[in-house]
Amino acid sequence: MKIEGQIVDIIRREIFPGSVEFEGDTIIAIHRHETGIQQYILPGFVDAHNHIESSMLPPHEYARMALRHGTIATISDPHEIANVCGKDGMRFMLDEAEQSPLKIGFAVPSCVPASPLCSAGAVLDATDVTELLEDPRTYALAEMMNYPGVIDKDPDCMAKINAAHRIGKPVDGHAPLVSGEHLKKYVSAGISTDHEANSLAEAEEKIALGMKILIREGSTARNFNTLHPLIKHHKDMLMFCTDDLKASDLLEGHINKLLRKCLYLGYDLFDVLQIATLNPVRHYNIPMGLLRPGDPADFIICNNLKNFSPTATYVNGIRVDELPYRPVQQLPNNFNAPFISVSDIADNMEGKEMFDVIQVVDGDLYTPHVKLSKGNMGQAQKIVVINRYEPKAHIGIGYIKGFDMNNGALAQSIAHDSHHIIATGSSDELIVKAVNEVVRMKGGIVVADPNKITSLALPIAGLMSNSPIDEVATAQQQLITHLHLMRCPLMSPIVALSFMQLIVVPELKITDQGLFDVMEFKYIS
Amino acid sequence: MKIEGQIVDIIRREIFPGSVEFEGDTIIAIHRHETGIQQYILPGFVDAHNHIESSMLPPHEYARMALRHGTIATISDPHEIANVCGKDGMRFMLDEAEQSPLKIGFAVPSCVPASPLCSAGAVLDATDVTELLEDPRTYALAEMMNYPGVIDKDPDCMAKINAAHRIGKPVDGHAPLVSGEHLKKYVSAGISTDHEANSLAEAEEKIALGMKILIREGSTARNFNTLHPLIKHHKDMLMFCTDDLKASDLLEGHINKLLRKCLYLGYDLFDVLQIATLNPVRHYNIPMGLLRPGDPADFIICNNLKNFSPTATYVNGIRVDELPYRPVQQLPNNFNAPFISVSDIADNMEGKEMFDVIQVVDGDLYTPHVKLSKGNMGQAQKIVVINRYEPKAHIGIGYIKGFDMNNGALAQSIAHDSHHIIATGSSDELIVKAVNEVVRMKGGIVVADPNKITSLALPIAGLMSNSPIDEVATAQQQLITHLHLMRCPLMSPIVALSFMQLIVVPELKITDQGLFDVMEFKYIS
Repeated sequence: MKIEGQIVDIIRREIFPGSVEFEGDTIIAIHRHETGIQQYILPGFVDAHNHIESSMLPPHEYARMALRHGTIATISDPHEIANVCGKDGMRFMLDEAEQSPLKIGFAVPSCVPASPLCSAGAVLDATDVTELLEDPRTYALAEMMNYPGVIDKDPDCMAKINAAHRIGKPVDGHAPLVSGEHLKKYVSAGISTDHEANSLAEAEEKIALGMKILIREGSTARNFNTLHPLIKHHKDMLMFCTDDLKASDLLEGHINKLLRKCLYLGYDLFDVLQIATLNPVRHYNIPMGLLRPGDPADFIICNNLKNFSPTATYVNGIRVDELPYRPVQQLPNNFNAPFISVSDIADNMEGKEMFDVIQVVDGDLYTPHVKLSKGNMGQAQKIVVINRYEPKAHIGIGYIKGFDMNNGALAQSIAHDSHHIIATGSSDELIVKAVNEVVRMKGGIVVADPNKITSLALPIAGLMSNSPIDEVATAQQQLITHLHLMRCPLMSPIVALSFMQLIVVPELKITDQGLFDVMEFKYIS
Repeated sequence: MKIEGQIVDIIRREIFPGSVEFEGDTIIAIHRHETGIQQYILPGFVDAHNHIESSMLPPHEYARMALRHGTIATISDPHEIANVCGKDGMRFMLDEAEQSPLKIGFAVPSCVPASPLCSAGAVLDATDVTELLEDPRTYALAEMMNYPGVIDKDPDCMAKINAAHRIGKPVDGHAPLVSGEHLKKYVSAGISTDHEANSLAEAEEKIALGMKILIREGSTARNFNTLHPLIKHHKDMLMFCTDDLKASDLLEGHINKLLRKCLYLGYDLFDVLQIATLNPVRHYNIPMGLLRPGDPADFIICNNLKNFSPTATYVNGIRVDELPYRPVQQLPNNFNAPFISVSDIADNMEGKEMFDVIQVVDGDLYTPHVKLSKGNMGQAQKIVVINRYEPKAHIGIGYIKGFDMNNGALAQSIAHDSHHIIATGSSDELIVKAVNEVVRMKGGIVVADPNKITSLALPIAGLMSNSPIDEVATAQQQLITHLHLMRCPLMSPIVALSFMQLIVVPELKITDQGLFDVMEFKYIS
């Protein structure tokens, strides 16, 4: 088969008229000749770090949209499902990804659970990680978040890193604000990327030490506006990634949105394409074609080189930008949370004068620890965590300030990284109503007021929906709208609540064991 | 009735414990005394310039949400409904607003139609404008967009401005990028505000000439990040406004979001409250209380002075932050568009080699005029405009590049400022399907593919829904999702399409008469 147009050769950095000839899944020749056809043929894009679960979509549904936007390969870390379902969760993702033409290269989660104090649904120890790294469908050891562990040469951390080195797969970093001697130790352990740089200075220090920087633009963390000036002097050290993307944003665009922004800002086309394509393919050794004879027939077709909205995407010689929705048949889960009643979440405020309260800050994982007198507790509302793996476990109960729901509650089974059910609301009755609906669905997000329930079922590990992307996007909008109707002032209340169990971020958090003082690194009795 | 707390006196710039005492609708005393109650009592906020129609909600539904966010008064320009229904539309808005406690001070639209070449549904001449300015429910002459008319002392413009001066109501400006001698002439006509400054330099030039600057943060135009540094040196010359806010953004916040940002950036609390409250009340002479004895009992209660999410809003002594949804009973409209068939929008491409095509640019009203050869017309799609007032009028037919819908069409009855039906799509059949659904509903927004129709009915003048805000927000998300599913790459395709009839913005636009070359200011035959 032959496709004619203006061929974009990202290795020789030239554009010439001609045709791409392929047989089966392989390019057999690139021909140069005159053509009146104005379309451009170019390699597809790579998302160098993402968590597919954040879209609340399983791999095939995520892939269906990413392919439309010209993304042909990803490095995907199934960290969330690994925390819930362990190796079975990993295998689910690996097997599902094989049903989809998107070249999903998996990264093996390095930190499951996030901390030994977390009661996650599974543990991936060094043996498990080694076994998964030996699977040819994995391409890296995923973001090594435990940077104190690396700096102090914790044996478990080092065993995982050494396994990756031995097997010949790169180790991804995750080192926000780490610098100086600590950063040098972290890098010298053989960690080669970072996607958490928040300033140019931080990124440049990391690049100077040999790290590659992933410019991230997701639904929550957005670093493009800060980091794009790196493109001018460090094009060889950069990649693009989305990290976490919600369904409505994925509908609108993927890595192509970053290219669009770069071209608008006047960066060189070939520099930008190198970052979006060549750099990640080489760094992770991804089997994605780059329009050379002998390469897999992977490419996209665009009407122009400005907005990068492909009119067609080909993977292994097959057109894949109009795939049908295909539901998952076998739904993995690990869900044993019990129905609860008001008495289960009652607490005795008798005789207590001062209360420890979590303060939520919109758009920030950092949660100040505030103390409120009994008379001012009207400003706070209850927050509870119900263990989703052990039906008779302790229930964590605390107070939080900033959700300010008026006659309503929010409960959900997405809560990094343990993914126990977390809920907050204006009354115990409404919290129970919302939690029990999550329990009934065996996972999901529920907003409840006295008259109405809005919900999104997440039957895949309590993390992902099995519905088409458009229905998921609409359901998310309905949940947010319902929360805003009950006067919650937060822009992203569901995201905010999902981080309240993450005991590695200061100052005060809550788990199924109760309030956790991150500064003292211990539970408040 | 007495309410206790920390009283925020924005005139003396102090906060003291005490109580606000009111009888009926009037504050009778402010008492100073000790109290353990931590809540703050402060005046409500003013949105100094908006178009309620942009939310697609009628006044009461808009008010219901604005009051929850602590906005107690607005200056609202019903420019859109005036273009469709003329004085009847104005009266509808004035009468509806009386059903709601929000103190909506109307501004009289100054430029209906936007240009004599527009075939809008109505004309507001100087006599009409004068009559409306004499209505005590109007507070200003709205944004004088025809700045060439002001500079050249066009008799119709001057008659409207002079009427406002004679009646003692301020004249609002709208002068993007106007500067130097032109700006001096514009200001010397007695125009006292501007909300279109796009840079600090532009704003400072206007302030130096005595104009007040409205810092705008809406759903599309967002100037806060550019203009907030003015707060430090020009607090007496500033107000806040939203201009155009869509339903989902209004659910989340209103003027309180701007206060939140200001406090986060470290600006002085009293400076910010002066801008949000005192400045617009004085400039427009709005009858909103400022917590002085004798004032109307208008105020809000907040738990803190950081996020400005009120726990209660009082207007004229009555709590108004939990109003029920109330549909409009009498729906005004001006809708006579006919059902169309494929033959009505056929055009003869025979023998033509080059085509004039509108290029849409995401997030920009500016539309380049591009020329495409016949062989490259696959990159463009048809766009049509159907006169909604005259059933037998000419149908405008042209081509547009950038919507790139795959097997789908979008049609809508919101299209500034004439609000004729405008539609674009991948085939004539789908354009007809979408347009006819808009016609059937007598106004609305429709996305159609061969199998499915997504729609939002806008029975109030073809501009506003009669449903609750949460349903409107969800429907908008569904429309956008459907467009993104058909691979439209634009972030805001509905907004983009709504500006394609606006023949006062370069370079190429389309009306019911056909393609309009704005640079030559004439139709392309």
